[in-house]
Formats: sequence, C-alpha cells, structure tokens
Amino acid sequence: MIISKDKIQDLNQKGLAEQAESFGFLKLALDKKGVDAETIVQHLADFQVAIPSWALGAGGTRFGRFSAGGEPSTLEQKIEDIGLIHCLTQTAGAVSLHIPWDIPSDPEAIKQLADSHGIAFDAVNSNTFQNQADQTFSYKYGSLADRQQAVREQAIAHNQEVIRIGKALGSQSLTVWLADGASFPGQNNFRKSLQHTQRALQEIYSELPADWRMFIEYKPYEPYFYSTVIQDWGTSLLLAEGCGEKAFCLVDLGHHLPNTNIEQIVATLMMKGKLGGFHFNDSKYGDDDLTVGSIKPYQLFLIFNELVYGMNNNEANNPPLAWMIDASHNLKDPLEDLIQSLEAIQLAYAQALLVNTPALEEAQIQNDVVLGQELLQDAYRTDVRPLIREARLRRQGALDPIAAYRSFDVRNELVRERGLKTVATGL
Amino acid sequence: MIISKDKIQDLNQKGLAEQAESFGFLKLALDKKGVDAETIVQHLADFQVAIPSWALGAGGTRFGRFSAGGEPSTLEQKIEDIGLIHCLTQTAGAVSLHIPWDIPSDPEAIKQLADSHGIAFDAVNSNTFQNQADQTFSYKYGSLADRQQAVREQAIAHNQEVIRIGKALGSQSLTVWLADGASFPGQNNFRKSLQHTQRALQEIYSELPADWRMFIEYKPYEPYFYSTVIQDWGTSLLLAEGCGEKAFCLVDLGHHLPNTNIEQIVATLMMKGKLGGFHFNDSKYGDDDLTVGSIKPYQLFLIFNELVYGMNNNEANNPPLAWMIDASHNLKDPLEDLIQSLEAIQLAYAQALLVNTPALEEAQIQNDVVLGQELLQDAYRTDVRPLIREARLRRQGALDPIAAYRSFDVRNELVRERGLKTVATGL
Amino acid sequence: MIISKDKIQDLNQKGLAEQAESFGFLKLALDKKGVDAETIVQHLADFQVAIPSWALGAGGTRFGRFSAGGEPSTLEQKIEDIGLIHCLTQTAGAVSLHIPWDIPSDPEAIKQLADSHGIAFDAVNSNTFQNQADQTFSYKYGSLADRQQAVREQAIAHNQEVIRIGKALGSQSLTVWLADGASFPGQNNFRKSLQHTQRALQEIYSELPADWRMFIEYKPYEPYFYSTVIQDWGTSLLLAEGCGEKAFCLVDLGHHLPNTNIEQIVATLMMKGKLGGFHFNDSKYGDDDLTVGSIKPYQLFLIFNELVYGMNNNEANNPPLAWMIDASHNLKDPLEDLIQSLEAIQLAYAQALLVNTPALEEAQIQNDVVLGQELLQDAYRTDVRPLIREARLRRQGALDPIAAYRSFDVRNELVRERGLKTVATGL
Amino acid sequence: MIISKDKIQDLNQKGLAEQAESFGFLKLALDKKGVDAETIVQHLADFQVAIPSWALGAGGTRFGRFSAGGEPSTLEQKIEDIGLIHCLTQTAGAVSLHIPWDIPSDPEAIKQLADSHGIAFDAVNSNTFQNQADQTFSYKYGSLADRQQAVREQAIAHNQEVIRIGKALGSQSLTVWLADGASFPGQNNFRKSLQHTQRALQEIYSELPADWRMFIEYKPYEPYFYSTVIQDWGTSLLLAEGCGEKAFCLVDLGHHLPNTNIEQIVATLMMKGKLGGFHFNDSKYGDDDLTVGSIKPYQLFLIFNELVYGMNNNEANNPPLAWMIDASHNLKDPLEDLIQSLEAIQLAYAQALLVNTPALEEAQIQNDVVLGQELLQDAYRTDVRPLIREARLRRQGALDPIAAYRSFDVRNELVRERGLKTVATGL
Repeated sequence: MIISKDKIQDLNQKGLAEQAESFGFLKLALDKKGVDAETIVQHLADFQVAIPSWALGAGGTRFGRFSAGGEPSTLEQKIEDIGLIHCLTQTAGAVSLHIPWDIPSDPEAIKQLADSHGIAFDAVNSNTFQNQADQTFSYKYGSLADRQQAVREQAIAHNQEVIRIGKALGSQSLTVWLADGASFPGQNNFRKSLQHTQRALQEIYSELPADWRMFIEYKPYEPYFYSTVIQDWGTSLLLAEGCGEKAFCLVDLGHHLPNTNIEQIVATLMMKGKLGGFHFNDSKYGDDDLTVGSIKPYQLFLIFNELVYGMNNNEANNPPLAWMIDASHNLKDPLEDLIQSLEAIQLAYAQALLVNTPALEEAQIQNDVVLGQELLQDAYRTDVRPLIREARLRRQGALDPIAAYRSFDVRNELVRERGLKTVATGL
Repeated sequence: MIISKDKIQDLNQKGLAEQAESFGFLKLALDKKGVDAETIVQHLADFQVAIPSWALGAGGTRFGRFSAGGEPSTLEQKIEDIGLIHCLTQTAGAVSLHIPWDIPSDPEAIKQLADSHGIAFDAVNSNTFQNQADQTFSYKYGSLADRQQAVREQAIAHNQEVIRIGKALGSQSLTVWLADGASFPGQNNFRKSLQHTQRALQEIYSELPADWRMFIEYKPYEPYFYSTVIQDWGTSLLLAEGCGEKAFCLVDLGHHLPNTNIEQIVATLMMKGKLGGFHFNDSKYGDDDLTVGSIKPYQLFLIFNELVYGMNNNEANNPPLAWMIDASHNLKDPLEDLIQSLEAIQLAYAQALLVNTPALEEAQIQNDVVLGQELLQDAYRTDVRPLIREARLRRQGALDPIAAYRSFDVRNELVRERGLKTVATGL
Repeated sequence: MIISKDKIQDLNQKGLAEQAESFGFLKLALDKKGVDAETIVQHLADFQVAIPSWALGAGGTRFGRFSAGGEPSTLEQKIEDIGLIHCLTQTAGAVSLHIPWDIPSDPEAIKQLADSHGIAFDAVNSNTFQNQADQTFSYKYGSLADRQQAVREQAIAHNQEVIRIGKALGSQSLTVWLADGASFPGQNNFRKSLQHTQRALQEIYSELPADWRMFIEYKPYEPYFYSTVIQDWGTSLLLAEGCGEKAFCLVDLGHHLPNTNIEQIVATLMMKGKLGGFHFNDSKYGDDDLTVGSIKPYQLFLIFNELVYGMNNNEANNPPLAWMIDASHNLKDPLEDLIQSLEAIQLAYAQALLVNTPALEEAQIQNDVVLGQELLQDAYRTDVRPLIREARLRRQGALDPIAAYRSFDVRNELVRERGLKTVATGL
Repeated sequence: MIISKDKIQDLNQKGLAEQAESFGFLKLALDKKGVDAETIVQHLADFQVAIPSWALGAGGTRFGRFSAGGEPSTLEQKIEDIGLIHCLTQTAGAVSLHIPWDIPSDPEAIKQLADSHGIAFDAVNSNTFQNQADQTFSYKYGSLADRQQAVREQAIAHNQEVIRIGKALGSQSLTVWLADGASFPGQNNFRKSLQHTQRALQEIYSELPADWRMFIEYKPYEPYFYSTVIQDWGTSLLLAEGCGEKAFCLVDLGHHLPNTNIEQIVATLMMKGKLGGFHFNDSKYGDDDLTVGSIKPYQLFLIFNELVYGMNNNEANNPPLAWMIDASHNLKDPLEDLIQSLEAIQLAYAQALLVNTPALEEAQIQNDVVLGQELLQDAYRTDVRPLIREARLRRQGALDPIAAYRSFDVRNELVRERGLKTVATGL
C-alpha cells in the first residue's frame, strides 16, 4: 500500500487554517522571548529517526502474543510499512535491520525500494540471543561472553557477517546488544565473561570498515535475571574504550535500574565523545518497551535537553547520534504506536530547542535553583504541537498522522493485502 | 521412568554414617537450647509442596526459549515427572494443574496414576491470559475485568469449568491469577475494571463447592506494564472480602514492587485469616521466577518465620496454606531446579522452626533490638541440612536428591523415552 | 510583611494585555473542542490548598541543614508567611498546623489573624515520632504501636490534645502520620504492632467530634528502614475501616515504593469512599519531598485525572478531599518553593479538567488504546497557563507570583524583620 | 573503660569445651572436603576492619535522633570505644577519622593512645557536605563541583588539610565522599559539575604523598534528590583514571539503586585494579546504614566471594583493600551494633573462603548451572561460627563478644563515666 502525497495534501486542507493561526500565534509568542520559530521548525524537519525492522508486527510477552493482523512477512513489506509511516510523519526516514530476521536476497533491489520511500539504512543489528535453525552451537549459555571458544567464534563470525550485509545496503554502523549474563550466582565468572566479551568485540571491531561505527548497548537484566555482562554504561564505556575510536555506547531508555538519572548518563557520555546511539521507548517498571513519551514525558524532555546541549557544545567531537525507536507493540497497531512515538520524540526535541540556555547558565552560576527550574518548565509547558505540524506540512506530511492513518484505513488495507494471520519476525 | 525405593536406599548407604553423625551432633546442640530435633524432623517430613504442572518443561522469556530435552508432553508424563521428584525428595506430594493445558481425558485413571506416586491434587489454575484455539472472544484487552460482558462471561465460564475438572480429580481449591490490566494511561477505567472483576469473581465463587477455597493472586505488573487490576495484597483482600468466607489471598514471592516487605504482608493476611496460598520462587529484579532461595534466602527465612508464627498463633482461624512452587526453568534442568527449590523451602522452614519464640517475644517487650536480631540470626545461621536429610531418610527419600537424580541419569533416560524435542505446555 | 492588593494590581498591569490575548486564544481553541474555559477558570479559582506550618523554613537532611534566612519563629509569623503566598497565588487559603510545634497561646487571636489573611484551618497534625522536652516516655521504639501500654496511652492522649487544639481553631480533621516501625528483623512483632495501632486509633477516634474526620497516612519506610506499621494503602484502609465512618486514608505522593501506580490507588480509595486527604510533593528516589511537579508532572496529571473523575462520579459519597502540600525546602527559598508547587498543582488540575471524558469512555469501550492515550495527552500537552493566570487575576492575585515575590523583595524584607539566623520549627 | 584480657579469658572459660567440640567437628567435616580449617582461622584472625570515628554515637534521621547515652565526646573517648570493641572482637584494629570532627590537638599522644589499644589509623575522611562555624564560603550548593572557584578552592584546601592531619597520624589514604549534586532539573550543568570535580580531585591528588592512596566514593542520591555528581562506579572510575595510579574507587554497599548487582561491580573494579576500599553496612530501601548482614546476608557473601577471588587472582595488582564499616545506629547501642556488624563481615568472609573454587570453575566451563549454585550454597549454608570464635580465641578475644559486652556492663559504665546526655559528633 502506498499513500500518495496528493491524498495527504487533500486531507490536510481542512486543518490548514487552524494550523496557520496557532503556528502564527506561537511564533509571535516565541519571538517575544527571542526564539526563532523558523529555526526550530527547520531542525524538526531535518530530524529523522530509524524504525527497527522488528517493530512492525505485534510484540509479545512470555505469557503470549496477540497478532495485529496484516503484519509484514517479508523485508519488502517491512520497508513498505516504514514508507507508510514516513510519508505521514516525514520523520521516519531510516530503517534499522535485524539480522538474521532481515537478510536481503537482493540488496540492490532493497536499496532501490527503500530509496523510493526516502528511507536510508541506519545501524544493522546482530542477534546472538536466539538460536537459528542451522547454527552449530547454542547460545543458551552465552555468545560473545561464552566460556567455549567455538561459541564465541560463531558469534563473532555472525557479527562480521552482519557488517557485510549492512555494507551492501549502505549502512554505516553495527549495534551489538548482548543478552549474555547469568540467572544464578555461581553460573558465570564475572571477570572472564567480561574479558571474553572485550576480546570478541575487538575482533568484530577489527572488521569494521573505516567509515563505520560500532554501538555497544547495555542493560541491567532480562533475559537473564541475576547478572548481565554489559550491565551499565560504565561497562559499555570500558568496552568501547577497549575497542577504539569507532566504538561507542548506545543508550536504550528502558535499560536502566529503577530511578536511574539517564540524562546525566547522556551528558557524561557526550562529554567523553562516546555516545553513539539512542533507542527510544518508555517504561514504568523495567524494559517495558512502551510507546515513547507515554509514561515519563518530562524525563524524555530532560534527556533531549542534554542531547541538544551536547550537540551544541561538542568539545569532544561526539559524532552525530543514531536515533532509533525500540519498542514493542503488544496491544496497539504497531504503525499507530510508532507514529505516536515519533510525535513524542519530536515534542521533546522541540521543547528542548526552546530552552533559554544562556539564562539557564546564568541561573546556575547564581545558584538560582528556582529560576533554573522555571526556565526548563517554561520550555516544557509550552504547547509545541504547532511547530511539529508545521515541520511536517513543509515536508508534505500529514497534519495529524494518526487521523490520516485511520482516514486511509491503512490497517484494514494491509490485512486485505497480506491476510489476518501473518506474523512478522521479531519478539 | 520410575525409581524404586530400593535403588534409593542402596544409593543412600554410603552416606548414612556421616548423616547419623552430623544429625546426632546437631540434635545434641539443639537439645542444649531446649529444641527437640525430632519434632522438627517430623514437621519437615509432613511438609508437602505442590509442583505446578507447567513447570516441568523449559521456561522462556520473550526473547526466546531453549528446550531442555525429554520434556513431558502429556499429563501422564507430568505426573510421572513429579513422581520422580517426590520419590527423591519426599516433599513434592501434590500437583497443581493448569487448565486448559492439563485437561484429563480420563480423570479416574489420572487420579489412580497420581495416587500410585503418592501425589494429591492441589489447587487448579485457570488461564484467561492467553487465547485458546477454539475460543470465541479474545482476552487481548481483558478477561474478568473486560469492558465487554461477553468476554467476561466467557472467562467466568472457563473458571467454572476449571472447578468442575478439579472436582473430578479431588482438588479443593481454585487459584485465579488475572493478567488483566493496561499498558497505557487511558486504556482502562480503573474503577470499572475493578468492579467488573469483583462481580465476576463473585459469580465464580457462587459455583465453588462448599469444601473448596478460592485463591486470588495479585501482581503489580507484567504482562501489562502500566497497571494491573489486582495490583497488590490490598486489592486482593478487598476482592476476597467481597466474595466471602471461602475466598483468600494468594502471595507469589515474585509479585511485588522493589523492596517490598513481604513478610509483613504475610503477617497481616494471617492476622485477618485471609492468607490462602503461597507461590514460591526467587527474584532479583521483577517476577524473575528463579529457583527458590537462590537470591534472597534470608528474606525467605523471615517469611517462613511469619508463617510458622501465624500457624502457631492462629486466632483468626486461617486455614492450612496451599504451598506451591511457581518458577520458570530457562537454563536448568526443570527437575533439578525443582529439587533445589524444595530443598531451599525446607531449609527456611527448618530455620524458622528453630526460632526461640518466647525469648524473641521477651526481647521485643524489652526493646532489646540487638537480641531480637541475634535470635533470628542464631536460627538462620544454624546448618539445618542434617535435619532435612533426616526427614527424607525417614520417608525413604534420597539423602542427596540432586546427586541421586544424576546418579540415576534421569534426564538422559527421559530423553531416551520421550525424545529431545518434546515441548511441555507452559510459558 | 503584608503586600497590598493595590501593589499586586499595579505590578500586573504590564502583563494584562498579553494575558488577555493568550487567554482569549486558548478559550477559542477550547470552545471548538466543546470545553468551556470559564467553568475551568472558576474551578481553579475555587481550588485551595493548605500550607503546612512546618514547611515555611529550610528543610534538611540527616547530613545537615542550610538556613534560608528570615524564617518564621512564631505561629503568627507562619500565618503571615502563608498570607504572603496566598495574596500572590490566591490558592493557599488554608494552613495545616503541626502540634506541638504550633500550639497557639491565644486561639482566638490566631483565628482572627488567619482570617484577616483569608486563611482557614485545615487538618491538624500530631507528632509522636519525636520526643518533646517534657514528655514522660520516649517514642524511640514506637508510639501508638509500642509494646508498652504507658507509651501508647501517652501517644493517644497527645492525639486527643491535638483534636482539642484544632477544635479551638475551627479545624475539622486530624491527620495521623505514624513513624512506628522497625529497622531490623526481630525488632517488632508485626501483628501485635498492627493490633496495638488499631486499638489506639480507635481510642483517638472515639474522641473525634461528630463533624470531624481522621486521616490515616501510610508510608513504606523512613525513619525506620526494615518495616513500617502502616506500610501501604491496604493497611491504612484496614485501619480506617476498623475505626469507622469518619476515618479515611491519606495519600502522600512520596510515600510509595519505586514504580507504584499511585493513580490506581487513588481510584480504588475513592471507589470505596475512603480517600480523605492528599499530601503533594514530588520525588525521584524516595520520600524526597521535592517541589510538586518538578520530577514527574505527567504522573501528577494522571493522579488529578482520577481525582477529578472520582469527584464527578462519586457513588460512594467520598467526602471533599483535604489538599495539602508536604514538601521540604533544602535549597530553595521555602516561599518560592511553595509558590512553584501551587502552580504545578493548578496546572495538573486544569489539564485534568480538560480531559474529554465521554470520548475517553467510548475509546475504552472500543478498546481503542491509541485513542485513549491521545485523549489524555491532548489535555496534558495543552498549555494551560493562561487559565491559571486568569483564575488568579479574577481573585486579584499576581499574574506571575514568583516574579511578584521577587519584585517585592519579600525574602530580604523578612530577613530584615526577623533576622538571618531564625530557625523555623520543622524538619 | 578498659577491659583486661584476663577478664575476657575468665569469661570465656565456661564456653571453651563446647567451642572445642564444635570447632573439632567442623574441622573434620571440612577436612573431608579438602578444606583446611586452620588456614581459614588464620585468615580470619588477620582480618581487620576500620571503625569510623563518627559511628560511636547514636545516629539519626531527618526526623530526629534518640541519644544512646555515654557517647564519646572527644577523640580520646572514641579511640577508647574502638579499643573496647577491638579487645572483644579482635577484628577492629583500625580507626577511620572524619575531619573536622576529629582533629587531634596532639597527634603523637593520640597515636600512642591508639597504639596502646592495637589500633591503626586507616583512611581519613574529608567533609565538604556541611558548613563549619568558621568557614568563609557555604557548601549549600556544592563544594568540589561548585560553580564558584572560591568555593572549590576552599574545599580543595580542606582536603589537603585532611591529608596533612592524616599524615601526622600515620594514615595512608584519603576518602573523598562528595555530596555535590542537585535536587532539581536545571539546578546544575552535569558536564561542568563533573569537569570541576575532576580538576579539583586532580589538585587534591597532586598533594597526595607517594605512599598514599585516594578513594573516590560514589552514591546515586541523598542528600540531593535529583542527581549526584559521582552517581555510580562508572563515574568514580572515570575520575580515578583522570587522577592517576594512586586513585581508586570506593564501594559503599548502601550507595546503589534498587537491585544493583554489587558483586559484579566489585569484580569489574578488581579486574581493572581500581578497587580501593569498602564501606560495609546493609539496607533494604536506600542508604539505610543498617547493621552489616542484617538484611541481605547472602548478597554480602556473594560480594565476599568476588573479593576473595579478586585477591587470589590479582592480575591487575589491585592493592590491599581498605575495609571499613559505615553504618548509623539509630536504635541500637552503637558498640553492640558494630560488634554485630563485625561478626557478619567475618561470617561472610569465612563462607567465601570455603568456596570450592576449582570445582566452581569446572562447573562454569561445563555450563552446569545447578552445580555452580550448589557449590556457593554449600559454602554459605555451612555454620561457620566455630571458625570465627576460634580466630577470636587465638587472639584472646571474647568467645561471644555481645554477651561479654553485656556481662561487663559496658554501656552503663560509659554512662557513669561520661554522662547520659553526651552527644558524639556525627550524623
């Protein structure tokens, strides 16, 4: 299914006047504060987030999975789904593949298909937390951290294969998420697990093309419940530094212990020039993988505040970040869920762009704690939706993507095309 | 596979002398403290824990599942597996069935089979958190709490069917674990969800035989990640009181927010005469479903301390508790995992039986905080393994059940009998 | 120090035009959605929150306390401080006293003083977590829950004395926050502690005037770190029901374990007609007592959403709630901190009033999870500050209370009047 | 008050036979497992833990403090208190001073006094989280991380002064615990706070004598409740590496977010050769500072298991660790509390020494998760109290230190000597 730009423009018609009015009103209000709305709209229009290929079908929990209907069962269909999101939101201009779920049989054809949708290939992801039908050794007890050399070598080779596939598609980064860990005290030797992981990452790194980057993800628990080899940003940084200049840390918002101050981690990693990528989602308890911004939108804003500050004050030459959504869609239509996530990300970004940084700096120097809080809250409390709509409009996206999605009856159309019982690869 | 008592006795031979010595030494030491070892051994020998029928195969996480090999694929094989555990440990004399995974085609034959292994039928469990192939309405958005009457009625009817099946097998209790909840603010109306649940439970309760009890389980999150209808013991108690005298709360050790004082909940529920059952497992982060006692053995002891106190000071006529293990076996041989869990439960029970309650009472009256702690620690620090071995010996179980299990090569034998790729029903 | 209404009006002048414009614009936008801005403004203008008498000085932690300067050292000065907040915000029209810190020598005079500031007397608070110079028995090991009858009787008598003091001032409710608990396993007998507490509360309750209510607060930990007698809402409800119709639960936002769904607790208690009062603050880790709305503003909105729903659908005749701020001001000027808190409370209340409840109800019936979320977020993302300013204007408060406070140089004036080293009673 | 060795020996008499018997029995049992009890006893006898000078009086919370009576009010009395603990336990052979609470007027005399009690001077601790009467600048908003250079310089100078005082006493290490952080978003600039801290620590480090080490402590929250500059081990390691070879991380057991795997952090830091010191205490919720081993004794064992492994496999030349108790004594007699803590530390150490490391290594290689757990549990479940008593006996300590302490009526004697209302410096 493809939605033409004309159809979107038609649909937008009836809302244009109201948008012009509300954008105009906000623009004026921002002007009085010395903020240029146009610059912010441009930033928002340029901002693109990668959609993971595994998030286009219904997600599940260990207790079960309820299919969404019309799920994509081929890589082509996944690209098509992202194309739908992108034409509506104009902010989903990239895909992040997961190998082996998405090995393209004809890379050139896939590249052309993606290109026709305006979609680039972001980081490729390896998978050594599940066994594949044809593999020799099991990852039940570990992969890059395993005690058996043969298992580690198989996992290293898989990662190197992922690099080759990504290269063929024009990707320029590899994300390594390692499930390796233990569910019981005594199961692993912490130190040996970490040392094996360091050496394995170095071997993968040695095959990294010169213009690639490697992202090392961390997570405190799940799927193992006593320890995880790369349990936190400190371990991730240690490993990245052990690999070299092209290795970076990746922050997934759901991969933290209760109450962690994530924005501070972001600030520290950018100060070190070692923040590589970002996995967006939201959560109340653990790695809940909920829609971005659905639980803790203020925390998301505070994180974006650090990201914007870091990008504007980049003394350590932190490279441009790889932005990606990484969520699960157990109850919602996956495409609607992703559209809501993209909206929440843009809102937080827009709010962060509104922060009066010089005044904040001055308040901090003066120990004016009250004013520091007021300045952040002033940005956060502003209704920035007119800015986001404006950015979409200027790229010919939909004024209201969810409404448009429903108006075009996308899900039913996909069910008609693909059937009700298709199941996308993923969790 | 069946292990004869003779074989177990043979295997025990070489350890009997050492056991006699260590039991004798401990018995003497306890005597000096005024504790009768024989009474404790008798309590331990009488103590039986139900094995859930779904815990005999490998468990999994949403990221995958690694099969154990030789998993039971019929109810008969599950009974057989529990029989193996029971003949070795002499403390697994009951099974807790899960419907629809374990509907017996011939209840009488199953009863006889279980009886031949010395296994009784404990609480039966309903399942309205997954869809079954033939069901009319989906539980995707709820079951007993659902907004649609038809869905609720289907879920009520299922629970009543579970009661009928349990009755045929001689079970006398129903456990209701309700996954119902929401993953997003706005998804549910808290109050209506709770009211629907209350009325649905009342309808199920109305079909409960006179000599049955109903257990209402609570859990703060998972599989939904914003709210759960029965989120805590307070809600469970409210619902149980809304049903009647035969309704009770069920505590699962893994179903609590971080740092919850579970032993206090146990004490409060027993004070109210409303504690019905117990699901044992252990966890570090959430509902990790790890081997009992593998992470927080002291907390387990403190809980047993309240249980023992509550049973000995039962002013509210709390009925005998239904004990059950509810764990997942993602990495270990499920039978070995259950044997380790049973051992940990017995240890905690034995330690709790050692507590000098009158002295503790006196220390509390005197505000002697140091002594209160010393008294609990004295019981906990005692090596009570000789008591547990003695209890097993007297019932002709194995001195060292894990060693015996391995000596009899049980898993390989089961693989030979059943094949490597069998998959037990469960999570 | 007293700020005249004229001075406030003068200060407001320069912002009136902009406020008229932004209020007008929002009013129109809300009109289109079928929301009457005037009704909301009226609700906001009517909404009053009590200021605790102990929150007018600098707070501290166990590591120390940094004085704020100009702190009130008499009850008269405390009333004066609240008067200052109220004249600026027009939403702080009540005070909540803490006995023995605020025993009035001349109740009539104090009533007149408060009345002159438009301040009513809300709930009075007892204190049995600290020893007073002249008391016979120590609360070191407990008060209402203590094992010694004499200690309990002293604590009961104190609470009854607090009722008498409150009565003289026109207060109509008593808040009992009980620190009683244990820092070590073995220190207390859970059941006896709870039973003593129940009986003690019943005795206090027996002295409650017919038109009074009693609020029972809960808290999981601190100042004791193993257990607290009234650890959660379930325990509080159990105790309230054990007292009678005039006993209710009190929710303090900071008194929950990590990740607790507080809005669900609110909904449940209102469904039972047992929610009595509310203590506002914010926190990231524990009972951090930070400025309301400074950490989790979306959670605050979700809580207000339940409060508004509960007040509008009050089948159980839950009485009007007692609203109070209960925060600590370790770094900020206490009065500025309170003004920020009041603003955050009003924002959340205004957002909750914007929720399209019929549409939400319909989305829930249709299992439209996406729409349910959108409806809440639409209300939350609206910039409602023009509504709050309008409500203040109509009551002759300050357009921007923080700016006004600073413009009138209040803190320095208070320091001049009272000195730099005064220390207010409190924590 | 001084307790003579003779008196202790006299008291021990009546328990010697029983101890000989139980030690003999355990020794034999361990022999069969190939473990030499004598070696373990020697390790235990050699093990010494520093007592912090601020932990000899009653601790408090922000809600209040209940005095213990007979608290030491001079440094001499503090040394005397530690002397009492040491003569009973024979494992408290060091003191850790806190400046400015314990500035010695005559260092030589204090050294001699300490020496007469067999007490060495362990790490000295600086304090920049409280203001002292005579200081120029306030630490209200920060110290080493403060935005004002003058504040930072004052804090640096204080730390250098602490080094000088420590040098005079024979101490060889400095512990820096930095409270610096923020209670509100916007208060601080994360990056600048960290950079200032790094540079300030480098300046302090530059004054460190050649044979000294510097320990950098981390903590996620409290006394500030939004962020802490040195929030976790990753930040501490980053700062230590930024200082040089003599800078190390310090782990305080209570300074972690809920559910943190602390033993893994210990393993990682020892692998890097960067673990400097250890602060023992226990906790259920936050930095509760409870008696060591009173809440999570199994976690303590697992940590010691890593410590013992790290000391025995010290490829990175991690220096000997500085062991210290850091707890608060709000309810118990501080000296009894410390004796209980020392006992718990020794128990965990003894259990860790019992672990069959080669078998564990083999189980890990074989992926025998069940056996790995069994091996740790076997060590943990052993009643090692006879070993600890034996170690004490051989150093002429008390068989049962708590009983001896009470038998000698120490607290009452101290009250008689010092009075009931003395207050020790500390929290």
